[in-house]
Amino acid sequence: MKEPKQIIALMSGTSCDSIDAGLCEVYPDLSCKLIKGINHPYPEHIRAKIFSAFRGDINIKELCQLNFAVGKCFADAANILIGEFGKPDFISSHGQTVYHYPFDEKLDNISLKSTLQIGESSVIARETGCTVISNYREKDIAYGGQGAPLVCFADEKWFKNSLVQNIGGISNVTVVSDDCETFGFDTGCGNIMIDYCVQKFFGLKYDKDGEIAASGTVCDSWLDCLLQDEYYFMPPPKTTGREYFSTKYIENILKIAPPEPQDIIATLTALTAKSIAQAYERFIYPSVSVDTVVIGGGGAYNKTMMKFLRNYLPKRIELKTHEDYRISNNYKEVMAFALIGYCNFYNIPNNLPCCTGAEKRVVLGKVVTP
Amino acid sequence: MKEPKQIIALMSGTSCDSIDAGLCEVYPDLSCKLIKGINHPYPEHIRAKIFSAFRGDINIKELCQLNFAVGKCFADAANILIGEFGKPDFISSHGQTVYHYPFDEKLDNISLKSTLQIGESSVIARETGCTVISNYREKDIAYGGQGAPLVCFADEKWFKNSLVQNIGGISNVTVVSDDCETFGFDTGCGNIMIDYCVQKFFGLKYDKDGEIAASGTVCDSWLDCLLQDEYYFMPPPKTTGREYFSTKYIENILKIAPPEPQDIIATLTALTAKSIAQAYERFIYPSVSVDTVVIGGGGAYNKTMMKFLRNYLPKRIELKTHEDYRISNNYKEVMAFALIGYCNFYNIPNNLPCCTGAEKRVVLGKVVTP
Repeated sequence: MKEPKQIIALMSGTSCDSIDAGLCEVYPDLSCKLIKGINHPYPEHIRAKIFSAFRGDINIKELCQLNFAVGKCFADAANILIGEFGKPDFISSHGQTVYHYPFDEKLDNISLKSTLQIGESSVIARETGCTVISNYREKDIAYGGQGAPLVCFADEKWFKNSLVQNIGGISNVTVVSDDCETFGFDTGCGNIMIDYCVQKFFGLKYDKDGEIAASGTVCDSWLDCLLQDEYYFMPPPKTTGREYFSTKYIENILKIAPPEPQDIIATLTALTAKSIAQAYERFIYPSVSVDTVVIGGGGAYNKTMMKFLRNYLPKRIELKTHEDYRISNNYKEVMAFALIGYCNFYNIPNNLPCCTGAEKRVVLGKVVTP
Repeated sequence: MKEPKQIIALMSGTSCDSIDAGLCEVYPDLSCKLIKGINHPYPEHIRAKIFSAFRGDINIKELCQLNFAVGKCFADAANILIGEFGKPDFISSHGQTVYHYPFDEKLDNISLKSTLQIGESSVIARETGCTVISNYREKDIAYGGQGAPLVCFADEKWFKNSLVQNIGGISNVTVVSDDCETFGFDTGCGNIMIDYCVQKFFGLKYDKDGEIAASGTVCDSWLDCLLQDEYYFMPPPKTTGREYFSTKYIENILKIAPPEPQDIIATLTALTAKSIAQAYERFIYPSVSVDTVVIGGGGAYNKTMMKFLRNYLPKRIELKTHEDYRISNNYKEVMAFALIGYCNFYNIPNNLPCCTGAEKRVVLGKVVTP
């Protein structure tokens, strides 16, 4: 007999600004409510060591130590919530990814597909007094998957018959439909190129509310040219990243850009919106009937991008936000790992083979008691 | 209601010659029977990578990959036993230690005490279809311990009112008595110096059955001199290792050694035996009544060492072997980790704070299902 569980979920992404911690309540129907979410900053030298790990500039001793030190930082984040709300039923920790290598090289005929999330769960258990479930990606990889994306699993449970469109640095969509198994792919770039150009031409970190884009005019010829990139024509499954939409890529396309910086920002904003709409037309509508798109990620706050997307999408499509479903846009990943932890607790498979490529549905996660 | 469990235990030590795998049956009274033990060699390049890790000459990508590759090797070892006997109730894996740093340095005021055992348990679970319990040392460290020694826990259960004397490269004793909490310490060097000199003077790997020692004469003056080393006078808790009884240390003492190589071997063999007997006199007999010593490790097969030990120990002490208690000397560690896994399964604390220094008794280990 399943019961609702209070779970503190912990995670830190590749930007590594801070640890996201969220106290969530997960229910037997696999819905999830965020009670409170916080950002807990990493101490300065720990954060610097994590970036050393990203660069590969870390030795085995430092990495071994960093695993335990990051565990303490995660525990500190959880303890802030515990101080306010008391102990949860258990903790679900994604950890801090420091390496992810889902490629099928071999040594002595043994697969080297692998991933590494640090933040020692034994330390979190000791420091909080809670059972900790963690290390989800390893098992998906052990079962032949890519170990990612895992959040699709939450999309499937929370958004029935929808396209769940995340617009972060890269844009990715999860297709949740009765017509097919849940699957997902990267539609193309999200905010990467916009952020780069806003920084370059305006000295700002990002285009707040899409105001710069709103002040410019879309250059249709440049937009059409950018949409010729072969990535947009490749059928899913496909993923992309900063390695592809690189600084070099952006500087190259800027050589044929319109002269006014605000027109560049407007056009790049239109590019993200139109590449999403085209991906749906090419790869989703033909086989999946859908009339709702749920927008998330930083792009959801860009009003100009949302206006463009509304224009490019068919009229029948309803645009919704995560908040329309009572899912926090800012703490969605944390909520997803609360759900994934809940499923481990009740032995419910919590990976989606059509999203990760794993050979079957399994229960991800390892358990350590306090 | 506890039941007997069939458990495959897996471990590989720092010599890293091969993976020890043992199918064991553990009973509710915490006794353990070895059904079959095997050595499974590492593939050549994997073993070379592990030695690279020992030397610190490995980057984060290689380490991340090696964790998964070693998991596959451990699974292969388990699958040999599964092929012969079928699936056990679960697997208990110690993993392969590649770093162990039980020292209390700090960064950003966070403890860096840490340990790292590789051999991804998710991979073992996938490849064997069994639940895997693993990663025991991390939690002892999280609770302020050294993460070692863990085998003392098995000594306490299996050998009542005994001194359990392991003679490996280093010699260590576990004191199991109704008079005190179980504790242990390193008595000094075991076979390190003997092996080094047998190699140097006779070109052999070790002194089989103690035959070379038996052919020589103990040089009492050199023996007395060697026994003046300050380590032997330090009260427990204390540990030592190859860092202390180093090549340099050995070459230094050889400068004042007797001229005949067989006399050197005889005297070093006597040194191990007498330093053990003196350690008991100084640190154990005064507070603990004991009349049984159980010998284990490679030294147990050295007949000359056993003869010396018999002479140096009080007459009332009975010398026994592990086999007298139906514990395999060769597979004792494997049997210990079967027991430690069994305890995790039934939520029985499986560390000994007096041995590891942990702040309290806890249930070590993490669980992943197949």
